[in-house]
Amino acid sequence: MSLNSFGRLFRVTTWGESHGPAIGCVLDGVPPRIVLSEDDIQPFLDKRRPGTSRFVTQRQEKDQVAILSGTFEGQTTGTPIALEIQNQDARSSDYGNNQDKFRPGHADYTYQGKYGIRDHRGGGRASARETAMRVAAGAVARKILGSEIRVRGALIQLGEKKIDRANWDWAATEGNPFWCPDASAVGEWENYLDGVRKSGSSVGAVVEIEASGVPLGLGAPHYGKLDADLTAAMMSIHAVKGVEIGAGFAAAALSGEDNADEMRSGADGEVEFLSNQAGGILGGISTGQDIQLRFAIKPTSSILNPRRSINLAGEDTDISTTGRHDPCVGIRAVPVGEAMMACVLADHLLLHRAQCGA
Amino acid sequence: MSLNSFGRLFRVTTWGESHGPAIGCVLDGVPPRIVLSEDDIQPFLDKRRPGTSRFVTQRQEKDQVAILSGTFEGQTTGTPIALEIQNQDARSSDYGNNQDKFRPGHADYTYQGKYGIRDHRGGGRASARETAMRVAAGAVARKILGSEIRVRGALIQLGEKKIDRANWDWAATEGNPFWCPDASAVGEWENYLDGVRKSGSSVGAVVEIEASGVPLGLGAPHYGKLDADLTAAMMSIHAVKGVEIGAGFAAAALSGEDNADEMRSGADGEVEFLSNQAGGILGGISTGQDIQLRFAIKPTSSILNPRRSINLAGEDTDISTTGRHDPCVGIRAVPVGEAMMACVLADHLLLHRAQCGA
Amino acid sequence: MSLNSFGRLFRVTTWGESHGPAIGCVLDGVPPRIVLSEDDIQPFLDKRRPGTSRFVTQRQEKDQVAILSGTFEGQTTGTPIALEIQNQDARSSDYGNNQDKFRPGHADYTYQGKYGIRDHRGGGRASARETAMRVAAGAVARKILGSEIRVRGALIQLGEKKIDRANWDWAATEGNPFWCPDASAVGEWENYLDGVRKSGSSVGAVVEIEASGVPLGLGAPHYGKLDADLTAAMMSIHAVKGVEIGAGFAAAALSGEDNADEMRSGADGEVEFLSNQAGGILGGISTGQDIQLRFAIKPTSSILNPRRSINLAGEDTDISTTGRHDPCVGIRAVPVGEAMMACVLADHLLLHRAQCGA
Amino acid sequence: MSLNSFGRLFRVTTWGESHGPAIGCVLDGVPPRIVLSEDDIQPFLDKRRPGTSRFVTQRQEKDQVAILSGTFEGQTTGTPIALEIQNQDARSSDYGNNQDKFRPGHADYTYQGKYGIRDHRGGGRASARETAMRVAAGAVARKILGSEIRVRGALIQLGEKKIDRANWDWAATEGNPFWCPDASAVGEWENYLDGVRKSGSSVGAVVEIEASGVPLGLGAPHYGKLDADLTAAMMSIHAVKGVEIGAGFAAAALSGEDNADEMRSGADGEVEFLSNQAGGILGGISTGQDIQLRFAIKPTSSILNPRRSINLAGEDTDISTTGRHDPCVGIRAVPVGEAMMACVLADHLLLHRAQCGA
Repeated sequence: MSLNSFGRLFRVTTWGESHGPAIGCVLDGVPPRIVLSEDDIQPFLDKRRPGTSRFVTQRQEKDQVAILSGTFEGQTTGTPIALEIQNQDARSSDYGNNQDKFRPGHADYTYQGKYGIRDHRGGGRASARETAMRVAAGAVARKILGSEIRVRGALIQLGEKKIDRANWDWAATEGNPFWCPDASAVGEWENYLDGVRKSGSSVGAVVEIEASGVPLGLGAPHYGKLDADLTAAMMSIHAVKGVEIGAGFAAAALSGEDNADEMRSGADGEVEFLSNQAGGILGGISTGQDIQLRFAIKPTSSILNPRRSINLAGEDTDISTTGRHDPCVGIRAVPVGEAMMACVLADHLLLHRAQCGA
Repeated sequence: MSLNSFGRLFRVTTWGESHGPAIGCVLDGVPPRIVLSEDDIQPFLDKRRPGTSRFVTQRQEKDQVAILSGTFEGQTTGTPIALEIQNQDARSSDYGNNQDKFRPGHADYTYQGKYGIRDHRGGGRASARETAMRVAAGAVARKILGSEIRVRGALIQLGEKKIDRANWDWAATEGNPFWCPDASAVGEWENYLDGVRKSGSSVGAVVEIEASGVPLGLGAPHYGKLDADLTAAMMSIHAVKGVEIGAGFAAAALSGEDNADEMRSGADGEVEFLSNQAGGILGGISTGQDIQLRFAIKPTSSILNPRRSINLAGEDTDISTTGRHDPCVGIRAVPVGEAMMACVLADHLLLHRAQCGA
Repeated sequence: MSLNSFGRLFRVTTWGESHGPAIGCVLDGVPPRIVLSEDDIQPFLDKRRPGTSRFVTQRQEKDQVAILSGTFEGQTTGTPIALEIQNQDARSSDYGNNQDKFRPGHADYTYQGKYGIRDHRGGGRASARETAMRVAAGAVARKILGSEIRVRGALIQLGEKKIDRANWDWAATEGNPFWCPDASAVGEWENYLDGVRKSGSSVGAVVEIEASGVPLGLGAPHYGKLDADLTAAMMSIHAVKGVEIGAGFAAAALSGEDNADEMRSGADGEVEFLSNQAGGILGGISTGQDIQLRFAIKPTSSILNPRRSINLAGEDTDISTTGRHDPCVGIRAVPVGEAMMACVLADHLLLHRAQCGA
Repeated sequence: MSLNSFGRLFRVTTWGESHGPAIGCVLDGVPPRIVLSEDDIQPFLDKRRPGTSRFVTQRQEKDQVAILSGTFEGQTTGTPIALEIQNQDARSSDYGNNQDKFRPGHADYTYQGKYGIRDHRGGGRASARETAMRVAAGAVARKILGSEIRVRGALIQLGEKKIDRANWDWAATEGNPFWCPDASAVGEWENYLDGVRKSGSSVGAVVEIEASGVPLGLGAPHYGKLDADLTAAMMSIHAVKGVEIGAGFAAAALSGEDNADEMRSGADGEVEFLSNQAGGILGGISTGQDIQLRFAIKPTSSILNPRRSINLAGEDTDISTTGRHDPCVGIRAVPVGEAMMACVLADHLLLHRAQCGA
């Protein structure tokens, strides 16, 4: 029942602080005899890594992952896989003069209130640095899912700027620093975010994650529902404030007729859905259609512009955060969201096999 | 790791089908010496009960709850509390001619696909009848929370019709069949939903749940986050397609300045927040402000108007559902959402006491 | 993490008190499409039922089980199975004059100390009546295990009287009221236990449980070890004070040579073990040999002969228990031990399938 | 539900292989603001460390533990504590010529059978080296328990040699290489084990663990019973084949009168027990008396004397293990048993606080 673990059979436990010696995770329940080395994990970490463009934090971390257990001669053994990344560029001095102040919108105040102590250096445990281990776990999860199941993500809204879905091109996401699937929006986004960054402010974003090739039958009513587990996984990502699946909030305004994904017998005897308002999940169980979800990320709380706050002593103060931060944390949340989707699906694949033998 | 359970220390397990002999739940982890009888639970069930207005299903169920264990002389004993409701008005004949067809938007197809068998009568386990036990569990959770913590819900959007938040009045929610907090909207809503109902269609809704009096410090990073648990709890409710907390999806378009809930030292030495974009949760931990979340409900899938579908044999067919259904399941989802909020908070209250001793 | 549940994938949750209206359990994770009706469960309950001989409690309970959910047209649906037994012969008056006294060796004192309240009627939740639901769960577990895996139990020691293992005959266990596998011991046991009963005393026992046909590979290092789960399951049975597997405590005095179960290549290419000191489990994983364990049951705590104790007020008192009790609870523990073995094996069968696909 | 984790609120997850780069664990749920550094943990690891006498393995490991997360300025922060030990003296060459053979009594055969792959080097994950992390976890658990609760262990049987309990002296356990509480037995034990060692054989042992100062009320019926959790914890230790609490297996032969721990009102108003057959636990809940349990350890499976076995190809072979092994693994199991007791008690202390607020 660890509070720093998720998953039921494919179980991920993360540990580590932003400015501690290292961060790591333990992956339990991984099936044996899966080919796995650091080379399977590192490319995903590189996608999430800080310092890759001027639109993300300039903190320099190589994020070089090491597998410390659970493999033998290049294959998984069925025993727990420990992954670890040494922290390198932890400039705690950046935070020194704010250590007794609570950054509005950040977890400083709640950690202090809950625990009566907090590691203020770089946000400590609350730092988005923790998401590196999610990405590493997701890479292993993808190996469990196999090549038939494909998980991809995209940034579909940057602050006030939305993409035109008519321009959607998955290939485009690899060609710009935003994972934006609408190539025509990229230029405007660059200017927009440069402006935000230079003004010392920040903005939020909306991320979309899609999984294709997911078989019919993953998930379980009522509290092991696939959508419930997916939304919890996404909501657990730093700065996420909303999650929706398929039509999502727009479903509220639909008629029963428009919302119903009608079915026809397909050419090959497979069922054919005429729409996907459900986002690939009905009754908490996958339909075999693409699983589609979106989540909203709030603006980075650490901003240069001063805000009113209080300090540890409860006195009024102002705070301005001068460390190296992402003007929009939503960008680096794309590979994190993909990883969480992969982890939840891997877990449910094993769960389904356990109960239904498939 | 039961798939039909939720909660970590206050643990709810539900069982039962729409047309079986009974439905029930087991509540484990309830603290001892809490005054509890059926009279504490029944009023909440009466709020959710079918047949209370023309806007909800006309199925007649008294939903009379019985406590079968876990209390002694009117107090909880610390042992599991079993609650049970006998099913009464289960008109399985309503469903007879559709039993081999998959209702679009419903869980028929996925249950059959996952398990290779399904109880088609009234939706079986997938029926929203299961939510009666959530409401019963929520009533017990409220006793754990005590009178300081207050959980309330409202319907803020019915199909395309939204309330004017300027008119918000909690008292109004008790005076109309929608739990609508904007009295001025009720007349229009009645006409609108009458039209939907008479046309054999259905619509979705948006529900808002608020908890006040929640102490600072509930929740835990990273996978026991209060918002992650709340989101999963809401998403597990039948027909929910999206959940957001505080500013939610709107946070994506905010600036860092606008999103930050500034703090000042209050008159009594308590911290005073100048806004609540966070919806009462930062870093997965409650701030002491009101917890505010919303969830979107899709339109009822069982509609009179025929839709295209397939049958068990995989053949094309049409389906029209003539049973007694809610034209908008969102209405009865209000007490269900309240109950889920209460259950999650009760669980985290116990978790926090365990780790931090408060 | 329910305290009244066990199992990871095949999950059993029990509820109910000795003198409440009913007792019951919820079984979650059962695979779908298993043929199951009350007739599959009742015979096992009848084995454990009170009042079957003069050597067990004379309380009259028909222990008629009802399946309230989770099956459809005689097969499991994959949804939770609720089982329930109405309590009938609850003579609370038997206990009236002792309700404020703590029976030595019983849970009265610890329940009161922990919870500050207890249902004193017939031991409340602490009553061995709870084991009826374990037996019912075990019957369902056997259906999951299939006919290849056979679970049997026997009483091998009654008070000071041990069987002669040279006389072991499984068939004999069905022919006497003790489940004794040594027919030659039965006469002496009858005289012995009659004496114990008439003297108002009680004795303990040792039970042996064996599972044959268990495939190689069930269990998992280190905290999902099959032997660790089996031990916990047995120790959770009322009055159990010790559990051992294979050579058990005798292994301490063995040499490494004698303890090692040597292996040879068998005629059919299967491995052949030359002994089974391990009791069928090595490194927490089943070897494919018979799984053999034993557990010790202490004497019934409720005895006629007066013992010194204290009361709720903390004052010295004497207590003599006049209710209808088993002179040796170990007898009825045989079917309970079998059931717990079946439940743990069913759980690990599903777990193994999940991770290793077999 | 991780298979390599135990505990409910104080949650221990271990990872690592005997000959991998490192071993480690993650401790979740630790209360905040506990003073903790490596100096609190290292002394316990030193007790378990290999190479401390001629009676334990001569493998040279400094077992220097590092805290990688979860503390700040010398105190716990409430976030997960990662502990790690680098492996140093891993002489894989010792094992080379046996890598395709299954050592009788060892987990080689079952790991291979379950996973279809195994890390044969030093036993891989099955190595007792894993217990170093249990000892480290136990050191942290002791900090949670506080100074009032004291956990101690002793070796009470070495092969065929038992102590005379009349000579029990806790202080003696620190003065000999066996943790033997009977100083008069030590000389004979030395000669005996020298003989065993020189003959290339091994023997088993019995360990006793005691916890004093445990408050009334820890544990919970029926599947969160303190004794069930304790026995599972002990049975999960490498080579353990039996566990008993209080009178244990001897309880089977007791009369109800002798087994009942009578109570009297003590001088200070506290209850006074006149005996402790229960070993400090009734109905799964601590009585406030000393908790006393024993577990049996089988002889080391890796012995010099050749045994018959098969190899990976299923062919008959002989095997003789020439690596550096303990002639009696029971000796080093004493600090491991203490650690497991401390971990289980810490977990139940938090659980009790959660439900009962004490």
